[in-house]
Amino acid sequence: MSGSYPLLDQINYPSDLKKLESDQLVQLSGELRQFIIDVVCENPGHFGASLGVVELTVALHYIFNTPEDRIIWDVGHQAYGHKILTGRKSVFHTNRKYKGISGFPKRSESEYDSFGTGHSSTSISAALGMAIASQKEGNKRQVVAVIGDGSLTGGLAFEGLNNGGIEKSNLLVILNDNNIAIDPNVGALKEYLLDITTSKTYNKFKTDVWNILGKVDKLGPKTRSAVQKIENAIKVTLLKQSNLFESLGFRYFGPVDGHDVVYLTKILRDLKNIPGPKLLHCITTKGKGFTPAEENQTLFHAPGVFNKSTGERIVVVNDKPTPPRYQDVFGRTLVELASTNSKILGITPAMASGCSMNIMMELMPDRTFDVGIAEQHAVTFSAGLAAEGYVPFCNIYSSFMQRAYDQIIHDVAIQKLQVILCLDRGGLVGDDGATHHGAFDISYLRNIPNMIVAAPMNEEELRNMMYTAQLEGGGPFSIRYPRGNGVMVDWIKPFSQIPIGKGRVVREGSDLAFVTFGHIGNFAAVAADMLESEGVSIAHYDMRFTKPLDEALLKSIGQKFDNIITIEDGCIQGGFGSAILEWLNDNDFSTKVIRLGIPDRFVEHGTQQQLYKECGFDVEGIYQTAKKLVAHKIIGKAV
Amino acid sequence: MSGSYPLLDQINYPSDLKKLESDQLVQLSGELRQFIIDVVCENPGHFGASLGVVELTVALHYIFNTPEDRIIWDVGHQAYGHKILTGRKSVFHTNRKYKGISGFPKRSESEYDSFGTGHSSTSISAALGMAIASQKEGNKRQVVAVIGDGSLTGGLAFEGLNNGGIEKSNLLVILNDNNIAIDPNVGALKEYLLDITTSKTYNKFKTDVWNILGKVDKLGPKTRSAVQKIENAIKVTLLKQSNLFESLGFRYFGPVDGHDVVYLTKILRDLKNIPGPKLLHCITTKGKGFTPAEENQTLFHAPGVFNKSTGERIVVVNDKPTPPRYQDVFGRTLVELASTNSKILGITPAMASGCSMNIMMELMPDRTFDVGIAEQHAVTFSAGLAAEGYVPFCNIYSSFMQRAYDQIIHDVAIQKLQVILCLDRGGLVGDDGATHHGAFDISYLRNIPNMIVAAPMNEEELRNMMYTAQLEGGGPFSIRYPRGNGVMVDWIKPFSQIPIGKGRVVREGSDLAFVTFGHIGNFAAVAADMLESEGVSIAHYDMRFTKPLDEALLKSIGQKFDNIITIEDGCIQGGFGSAILEWLNDNDFSTKVIRLGIPDRFVEHGTQQQLYKECGFDVEGIYQTAKKLVAHKIIGKAV
Repeated sequence: MSGSYPLLDQINYPSDLKKLESDQLVQLSGELRQFIIDVVCENPGHFGASLGVVELTVALHYIFNTPEDRIIWDVGHQAYGHKILTGRKSVFHTNRKYKGISGFPKRSESEYDSFGTGHSSTSISAALGMAIASQKEGNKRQVVAVIGDGSLTGGLAFEGLNNGGIEKSNLLVILNDNNIAIDPNVGALKEYLLDITTSKTYNKFKTDVWNILGKVDKLGPKTRSAVQKIENAIKVTLLKQSNLFESLGFRYFGPVDGHDVVYLTKILRDLKNIPGPKLLHCITTKGKGFTPAEENQTLFHAPGVFNKSTGERIVVVNDKPTPPRYQDVFGRTLVELASTNSKILGITPAMASGCSMNIMMELMPDRTFDVGIAEQHAVTFSAGLAAEGYVPFCNIYSSFMQRAYDQIIHDVAIQKLQVILCLDRGGLVGDDGATHHGAFDISYLRNIPNMIVAAPMNEEELRNMMYTAQLEGGGPFSIRYPRGNGVMVDWIKPFSQIPIGKGRVVREGSDLAFVTFGHIGNFAAVAADMLESEGVSIAHYDMRFTKPLDEALLKSIGQKFDNIITIEDGCIQGGFGSAILEWLNDNDFSTKVIRLGIPDRFVEHGTQQQLYKECGFDVEGIYQTAKKLVAHKIIGKAV
Repeated sequence: MSGSYPLLDQINYPSDLKKLESDQLVQLSGELRQFIIDVVCENPGHFGASLGVVELTVALHYIFNTPEDRIIWDVGHQAYGHKILTGRKSVFHTNRKYKGISGFPKRSESEYDSFGTGHSSTSISAALGMAIASQKEGNKRQVVAVIGDGSLTGGLAFEGLNNGGIEKSNLLVILNDNNIAIDPNVGALKEYLLDITTSKTYNKFKTDVWNILGKVDKLGPKTRSAVQKIENAIKVTLLKQSNLFESLGFRYFGPVDGHDVVYLTKILRDLKNIPGPKLLHCITTKGKGFTPAEENQTLFHAPGVFNKSTGERIVVVNDKPTPPRYQDVFGRTLVELASTNSKILGITPAMASGCSMNIMMELMPDRTFDVGIAEQHAVTFSAGLAAEGYVPFCNIYSSFMQRAYDQIIHDVAIQKLQVILCLDRGGLVGDDGATHHGAFDISYLRNIPNMIVAAPMNEEELRNMMYTAQLEGGGPFSIRYPRGNGVMVDWIKPFSQIPIGKGRVVREGSDLAFVTFGHIGNFAAVAADMLESEGVSIAHYDMRFTKPLDEALLKSIGQKFDNIITIEDGCIQGGFGSAILEWLNDNDFSTKVIRLGIPDRFVEHGTQQQLYKECGFDVEGIYQTAKKLVAHKIIGKAV
């Protein structure tokens, strides 16, 4: 089936949806699911998560009065159905594409996107704020947070629950429990959710509760207190086993089948009339309705292009050997180092496959820790291990490392502990857009005393930085590298120690210097070739470290050049170029520094190449910037 | 009683403590408590927290084999007893003083300080890391985290529990439940703890449990499984009410009287033999044993100098009217603004009295939210309120705002929401030391797009910045100001709007320019006076905004001066001076910039004045730096 959506074709906004009879919602859900499959198989994006909440999405928009009522989608990569039902069906094929719609809810994109998301665990806090705002205006609107069990492990979600449980707002939290984040969910909470879901005691009484609650709005407000009494009585017998959410002041409902759309509409209608903070526990299947996605949930989290009949993923095969992804260089090198240094451990907050630590996890399960979506804990936990002489490699995407900023300062850097922070996805990440770009790490790490801030220009440097970081007697060491592939086909070389704070000369030259940090140096190298062919002599320095800086190298650069161009895949404010400029100024060089990097605005989504270009530091941008600086020279030659 | 410590006099290390009979521990606890009172009444520091854990401290060091066994004190301001019993009795009077011992546990200070603390909620994560390290070495040591009920509301603590509950390590978490942080604890968790503490069902069975468990080590390992069965059976009847910690995979013990030292030693001895993650719930009284502190726990959190007989706090009264504390200017101005702008709300994560939001809390309880120790939530919750058109003033100390870095970027800045971030304790805070200095905020905020980064030089500017920030149509706005007093006695002036990104000329001059950000401008002003008296003409610019910068003003500065000195009470790397330097460089000025600020190392504790001096930006430091720059001129005059 494909391309036939008789009901969905009639629906552009929730107002259209509301015209359907509730028994038509089953068919609509099927069509919506098929529409997502049909579009996403050709226009890659997140996949399994949205399939899992199709029924929930339909039920929410059927029952609630959006956009006046607010739905906040935690993380937001499950909100494709929501986007399709709220005015964006016809542009859904532009999802995550340059100038197209965002892969996440975004306030500036639609009034139905009540609160922008992208990072996990924010929805309860944001929704609580909105629910209290509503309460202040006489509860004029409903506020719903939809949060996955994975996101619930983030401390921010707990902070939201702890606060929400004592506020009198009518916040509804829907726990979308599919037992998986990107990788399978981990932690005590997961075990607990499984426990209450499978409890016989619980299920024995469940139907009764719903039968009673189902009558609430028919009975009218006067009988509500009676119903509450019944519910309380039931709760005592029903929830003999502990209930964490009740502990935190939320009335707990469920678990319910998150794929029974008609049932969901009934429950949601009832819950609208129940005051106070409440949580509905929905059991869903990630990838629901598309067998390959149900069977391999991690792979189909964001599968790329795939054959919608067979589920085969379509990868363009290049006959030429291609350089590996940086993440795989990290993952494989980590195993290599760990096999000779028994103190090395691997720590990841729910990004094991994303950062390729899953390789070590399979080979050395006892030495690898997936701590759940919990960046703060990942870093402090690593600090605890390092305090006992272990050497933790803690891998967190650059934009998520923002969550652990205080822990890096307070638990790692002040104590000079040998925690090796590996920041995958440093720089512009492409189609995930503004929330996910690793724009700020160079800047926010280089101001921390005791911190080493390193970035490799290629696979070999990444390996050697990892090697150097784990040597005995080290301290805090950060290594950032981008999403995507490196530049070396033959990348497994013997390890060699990199002197900390030493840059290297990539190319000697006399007219102008490129001073680069990290992978982006490869763009600069190409630009330098182009300029050389036009008779411009470019020097190129791969600094490797923003902190500590290679002062001897900078001195020679300062002495030799009146102009330099610094190039970094990070924010210009306070970043690598700023560090270079500070050093030159502090050491009485008046060298003019042109700083290329991510400008002072949030960059949207697109391919990495499109965004590099937009920011002016793709090969062409570097070339043009350089050309302007040496124009007099080129003109001179022409003459 | 004072000065007489017959038992404590014999104890310098835990090895001495272990020589005592357990019934002597009661007397020892009394002496230790008195010692703390005697020293802290004259040498100000944190007070109530340490009094509350005297018995727990004695019991822990009596039972556990420190320093080989690890004790991690969450936050750490309750660790005075621990310091006194672990080799630091004779230097305890230097607590928090310049070059004296730290007010917090510190690895570099003592091997008994297993893990440095200062910020809350880190202990479970760190201890878990250490417990897993111990497990890898055959459980060779015990690891204990002592955490308050206030700290437990921080999301990091929850992340630690969630991870700890599935690991097989023998981690022991001791919940020091005194129902208060600095201000009374808030949130659903607090209600919950109170609930299980006062439950009759629970207490009915409590003694039996302990009787059984007390025999575990006598019965030997073979009978342990039998005991566990009994315990499980009891748990079912006993914990009819939900138990949150059991939900998370921790075996829950308690609540117990945290002031019964002999009983505590028995329990701790038993718990040493119980494998797996476990939590002991101790009920304590903050300020225990010193009536005034028990009766006013917030005031005696850190009371300053006081009369130990009467509890009267001794404040040096100045006959002259003195300028107010910045925090009070904030607190009172907030109320003033809120009384005319009904959209204004106040949000604080457990720092209501510390930031003086308690003034608004008393007058406008419905418009003020203490969300618990939960900086991340405070910011995202504020973003939710702002999304609905409210204007939240979210006040968080600068060093704690590090916890909310991702939320500032992801939830506030990307969405351009009008959240007003007020960073109290910006800059060097004095005797709390390295963990608490607000060193990084200028740097970590100025790289965020859409963010306004402002700092007032005096009370009037703070008021006007707050006024400006709340005007209709605003976006993200940060205002940072230091711990301590301002400079204006007569500070309540009518509000006036400050054009965003506009600095001001404090003083015209011709030889050299001081370019300052915030309160520290007052030091510069005095230094300028001194220099003027020596014939040096100093210009002084109070930039008020690091972002956006006043480009017109900078242009005129760049045109006029070859040398400028930037002065900020923040880290030099990437900070305010760096922003000025970037602008000058980008706009083709070769002005040399001398940047004064916090150097690239962690500054320890002392008075603010001592630390300003150490960092070279007190009045004298500024004066000397300037003098060097204009030496040729002064020499010229002398000649």
